[in-house]
Amino acid sequence: MAEGQMQLGIVGLGKMGGNLAVQAAEKGIDVVGTAHHKKPELEEQGVRFAGSYPEFAAHLRPPRVIYLSVPAGPPVDEVLAEMVPHLDRGDVVMDGGNSFYLDSMAREKECAEKGIHFLDCGTSGGFTGARHGACFMVGGSAEGFRIAEPVLRRLAVDEGLVHTGKAGSGHFVKLVHNGIEFGMLQAIGEGVSLMRGCGQFDLDLRAIFHNWAHGSVIRSWLIELMEQGLKERNLESIESYVEDTGEVNWLLESAIQWEVPIPVTAIAIMELFKSREKDSDTYRSIALMRHGFGGHPFGKDEHIAEERKISRIARI
Amino acid sequence: MAEGQMQLGIVGLGKMGGNLAVQAAEKGIDVVGTAHHKKPELEEQGVRFAGSYPEFAAHLRPPRVIYLSVPAGPPVDEVLAEMVPHLDRGDVVMDGGNSFYLDSMAREKECAEKGIHFLDCGTSGGFTGARHGACFMVGGSAEGFRIAEPVLRRLAVDEGLVHTGKAGSGHFVKLVHNGIEFGMLQAIGEGVSLMRGCGQFDLDLRAIFHNWAHGSVIRSWLIELMEQGLKERNLESIESYVEDTGEVNWLLESAIQWEVPIPVTAIAIMELFKSREKDSDTYRSIALMRHGFGGHPFGKDEHIAEERKISRIARI
Repeated sequence: MAEGQMQLGIVGLGKMGGNLAVQAAEKGIDVVGTAHHKKPELEEQGVRFAGSYPEFAAHLRPPRVIYLSVPAGPPVDEVLAEMVPHLDRGDVVMDGGNSFYLDSMAREKECAEKGIHFLDCGTSGGFTGARHGACFMVGGSAEGFRIAEPVLRRLAVDEGLVHTGKAGSGHFVKLVHNGIEFGMLQAIGEGVSLMRGCGQFDLDLRAIFHNWAHGSVIRSWLIELMEQGLKERNLESIESYVEDTGEVNWLLESAIQWEVPIPVTAIAIMELFKSREKDSDTYRSIALMRHGFGGHPFGKDEHIAEERKISRIARI
Repeated sequence: MAEGQMQLGIVGLGKMGGNLAVQAAEKGIDVVGTAHHKKPELEEQGVRFAGSYPEFAAHLRPPRVIYLSVPAGPPVDEVLAEMVPHLDRGDVVMDGGNSFYLDSMAREKECAEKGIHFLDCGTSGGFTGARHGACFMVGGSAEGFRIAEPVLRRLAVDEGLVHTGKAGSGHFVKLVHNGIEFGMLQAIGEGVSLMRGCGQFDLDLRAIFHNWAHGSVIRSWLIELMEQGLKERNLESIESYVEDTGEVNWLLESAIQWEVPIPVTAIAIMELFKSREKDSDTYRSIALMRHGFGGHPFGKDEHIAEERKISRIARI
């Protein structure tokens, strides 16, 4: 390590943490990482690896700036419990995950009692952002932010760093960001369903997303990702099951608590759940009741479909 | 007009048509505009004005390339009825508005019978796009597109021009684009409600949108517009009433006809309607029935609110 070289410790070297570590090393930061397993591919790219928290702490000069890239929930508390005893007063620990903001507020309080600055560092931009320039929304004390700021600014895209306010606000703002993301994803997905479901035009979706990415009102990174994704994969080849990490559920819980109406965000979350059930007890029950009152047959009724097609011509 | 200079006729010189005309003039296109009223401010910027369709047609050499920027619906048919008799076979008429794609298909057929290429030219990018570089999604014959392409390419941002296929497909794709736009708008709006409704953090919305515009997953033009808008206006000063031009309603009608589920787009449309009624008969009726079965008082019940606040602490 060169005298005065910027340093960063990273706990968790998965896709986000690993990419961030490589970005940092590439940008001349002395990066020390620790994780359950050694990552030789990261070491080849200039990331030093520490096999234990004492070693990790010894590699970093105080005030240390440490970024956690571990799953939200108990893993964050486990890392804090094991690592903090090896840190010094004035060190900064940032939680880069999608932790619940009330948890972050509690952790900040506990850390503050030990003289450690805990920052909730909402991180956006996906893996490519972690690798080439991320977007950080950071809650916590002004003093903690001041210490971490130079490293964060180097890892962020230009203007991609904001101090959102007191502890918890960074993760809260990131949570709102993720809720907006869900709504956008669902809206774009519905657009694809319409373009494939209209049955009238032989549309080249990739060309359309390419077009929309250039100068349209909906131009956005997600629109660009759709174009890129359709270049690499056939839509039919993708499993129609959407997994997520669950944090946006907390946003819905909070909205219910504050009685803030967020119908589209709520529906987008429900749509994720729905994507996971190919057989729905809701629809089974509806079919059962329709059968009960109207004698409607179970499953597809070809006769009804044909009748509808005839009446449709006049409708629009 | 210089020999061989690119030409464009524009019918309708409102915000979209006027900005497009100025962009075209600025880019060296010989622009002839016609509208109900003279626009001296456009003439000062190099746009020639024609007071009648014969004059308009005389100013343009065949094959003419004409862009309509008039409201969707009857105005388009009125323009076609009055203007087409003054055109020559092989001329191209593009409808740049948000016309219903089935109307565009019918108009293309009628124009084709007269030897006129009718293109449905979905145009995105808002006023700034019209002024500085737009996004066009164009349906219609290959021959008509070939004739209009050089002018459209000059008025589009790089890569912002696509031939979507046969007649109607351009306006259909634009309609889907507008549906996605509605979902995105609503999702972003709900995010703002959450950030203002949480009551816990004193968030600087402008700084947060600035941050989100740089490197986040939801970076997009709409996020940039929110930042810009919050710079210019106080959120409270804006009337909480959303007007629209109604074309996305057609998308919902089509989705119902094709039985394509678009829950978020549908809710976003309903939310626009809801924004317009400050007094809702739905909510009045719910209140009436709740009063009926539970004796719940009309309006706000401070006692309930207080009780809830107490139980809330334990809930999250």
